Amino acid sequence: MSTDTSILLRDLSEDGVLRLTLNDVARRNALSEAMMSELGGAIAAAGTDTSVRVIVLAANGPAFCAGHDLKEMTAGRAAPDRGHGYFTKVMAQCSGLMQGIVTCPKPVIAEVTGIATAAGCQLVASCDLALAAETAKFSTPGVHIGLFCSTPMVALSRNTADKHAMEMLLTGDMVPAARAAEMALVNYAVPEDALTETTMAMARKIASKSSMTLATGKRAYYAQREMPLGDAYDYASQIMVDNMLAHDAEEGIGAFIAKRAPNWQDR
Amino acid sequence: MSTDTSILLRDLSEDGVLRLTLNDVARRNALSEAMMSELGGAIAAAGTDTSVRVIVLAANGPAFCAGHDLKEMTAGRAAPDRGHGYFTKVMAQCSGLMQGIVTCPKPVIAEVTGIATAAGCQLVASCDLALAAETAKFSTPGVHIGLFCSTPMVALSRNTADKHAMEMLLTGDMVPAARAAEMALVNYAVPEDALTETTMAMARKIASKSSMTLATGKRAYYAQREMPLGDAYDYASQIMVDNMLAHDAEEGIGAFIAKRAPNWQDR
Amino acid sequence: MSTDTSILLRDLSEDGVLRLTLNDVARRNALSEAMMSELGGAIAAAGTDTSVRVIVLAANGPAFCAGHDLKEMTAGRAAPDRGHGYFTKVMAQCSGLMQGIVTCPKPVIAEVTGIATAAGCQLVASCDLALAAETAKFSTPGVHIGLFCSTPMVALSRNTADKHAMEMLLTGDMVPAARAAEMALVNYAVPEDALTETTMAMARKIASKSSMTLATGKRAYYAQREMPLGDAYDYASQIMVDNMLAHDAEEGIGAFIAKRAPNWQDR
Repeated sequence: MSTDTSILLRDLSEDGVLRLTLNDVARRNALSEAMMSELGGAIAAAGTDTSVRVIVLAANGPAFCAGHDLKEMTAGRAAPDRGHGYFTKVMAQCSGLMQGIVTCPKPVIAEVTGIATAAGCQLVASCDLALAAETAKFSTPGVHIGLFCSTPMVALSRNTADKHAMEMLLTGDMVPAARAAEMALVNYAVPEDALTETTMAMARKIASKSSMTLATGKRAYYAQREMPLGDAYDYASQIMVDNMLAHDAEEGIGAFIAKRAPNWQDR
Repeated sequence: MSTDTSILLRDLSEDGVLRLTLNDVARRNALSEAMMSELGGAIAAAGTDTSVRVIVLAANGPAFCAGHDLKEMTAGRAAPDRGHGYFTKVMAQCSGLMQGIVTCPKPVIAEVTGIATAAGCQLVASCDLALAAETAKFSTPGVHIGLFCSTPMVALSRNTADKHAMEMLLTGDMVPAARAAEMALVNYAVPEDALTETTMAMARKIASKSSMTLATGKRAYYAQREMPLGDAYDYASQIMVDNMLAHDAEEGIGAFIAKRAPNWQDR
Repeated sequence: MSTDTSILLRDLSEDGVLRLTLNDVARRNALSEAMMSELGGAIAAAGTDTSVRVIVLAANGPAFCAGHDLKEMTAGRAAPDRGHGYFTKVMAQCSGLMQGIVTCPKPVIAEVTGIATAAGCQLVASCDLALAAETAKFSTPGVHIGLFCSTPMVALSRNTADKHAMEMLLTGDMVPAARAAEMALVNYAVPEDALTETTMAMARKIASKSSMTLATGKRAYYAQREMPLGDAYDYASQIMVDNMLAHDAEEGIGAFIAKRAPNWQDR
């Protein structure tokens, strides 16, 4: 499906882990229109592909992702409206991509090597889980160029404490992976040569679960997160009841009581 | 009031600390209907009992609490509606129990030994404070049995960062106490043999405060937490004014200025 | 503009860093009516003063800020309404001061030495960033005097995890700076003799950015923080488009591509 010259590589393992690898090394994996289209399309397709159980988002080259493509953005200024229409389109596309990760029924894990900056940092923040090489670094450097990282901060501020997010946003400083882990922007910082193995082990573990259950839970997580406590309990209780009545819970609980391995419906 | 064979033990100290100890060791302190009824009733009663100033929630046996009683749940499937009515009732009871901890006017401190899983982990997350033995462990393992921990995640996600909560929910992995403290699911992990002493010292310290003040503050905390900033300030300012006009603040401030011990109204 | 006997000292550096130093040492920099008026006025004035780019909030003496002035508050009880009107006025003034920090278009950095308690702790929590001497300490001790720190908790609970905030509020215990950094109440705890240098370096770095960009980003941060995810993205996308069309982004991006230093419009 993909060749080594594609800007996005796809590799689906037998156990249902889809690796999507950003591969536009020359442009530091910038979120060009082409890249956003490729990546958004791949995630949307994986969402409905029953052979995909978990998505890992990785990258080739020294930059995980450098954010928006500033040359493309600058070219957009040539339009009669000075780029208003173009910037609106690009921002909508980017926000759609990020929200597409959140709404994708499959868990998405970022595997971060190198530099994840601006919308590249947002990409990591938007994933359900993230593992980073100890050598990886993160920043929201828009403030250096007069363009505050306002959309990246939507995702960043939902991962980290306010003072941590504000430090990144106001200074534009690079944050090493160990600090990013303390801030909960990533789950763990691991030695670079163990990163893929660690990420894939986590991905395979999650892929061994019921896809129905993962999809139910992921959707419910982000929905209840934005509700007042009482509403969240009413909503989640209903989800639990529906989940109990689904095949995979009956099978899973039965298997647990009988001390045997479960047979999920979609396996 | 309780015997050693009760599934919930009650012990009220002279200084107003009520220890509630889960004691259904054979069932790993599962939240059976009976346990939820006992525990919910005890917390509700303590809420209006002026001799109770602080509640400590502890457990006997190797499991702090193993979550729902899966055998009871499975038996519920025998009904003509395949359990829909029963599961709805159980989830409402469980969510009511958890919210009863949050709305209880007395501070509730979890003292966690052993394994706190699924709704048992939710129980810890629902308490105002939690101390754990270094040997304690936490998980939301529903994903292993096809039943995502959707109600536990309501409480869990209000304690921890999203990526930490998602890691627990998607992997079902056990989290050691030290990591749980980093995640703010518990306040501290302490050596097991110092746990009860440490918890009781904290409980007695809080019990020495004005019950009116604790009740006012706890209620206001969770209420303002869900408001936009401006509304939260308007609300909390009103609470402060009312609190200033109450006996215990006048007494407490007077005692502070006069450098003497305060005499709370309910002591 | 200020003398050494003022309760609030002002010092504006050439690079646009305004140091506001609480200087009512005898009253432990309490937020008396006079102090709130001075500080609130200074922050509001700085907000519209183009020579001010970043505000640092520091203090002289062993207390950064001891919170409300309890003697003033107690004197207020002498009124026929037992102080209701006075307390209402003071709480509104204090909440206005804290929200004035949040809405100030200039970033505000707390530089904390000594003890920051009650509304003094709230002051730190309300700043965008905070650095603390390793010797600094924080608490919300209202519970000791029968007056729960209900308004401080509005800011505190928006900085820290619930269990951490509740521990401070229910026990009134002093929290050392290192723990406050773990809780994200402050960004860093640094050696006391390096504190001012570290804070000023951070302030100057931020002051070198476009004021328009900082103001845009700070306002958008707190606005989007309270929105559901989809609304936050719609809002932040619009902010990005407007920001792209502003002079300083065009200049900053152009300078970045050309590898030269940017010339901000207000410099």
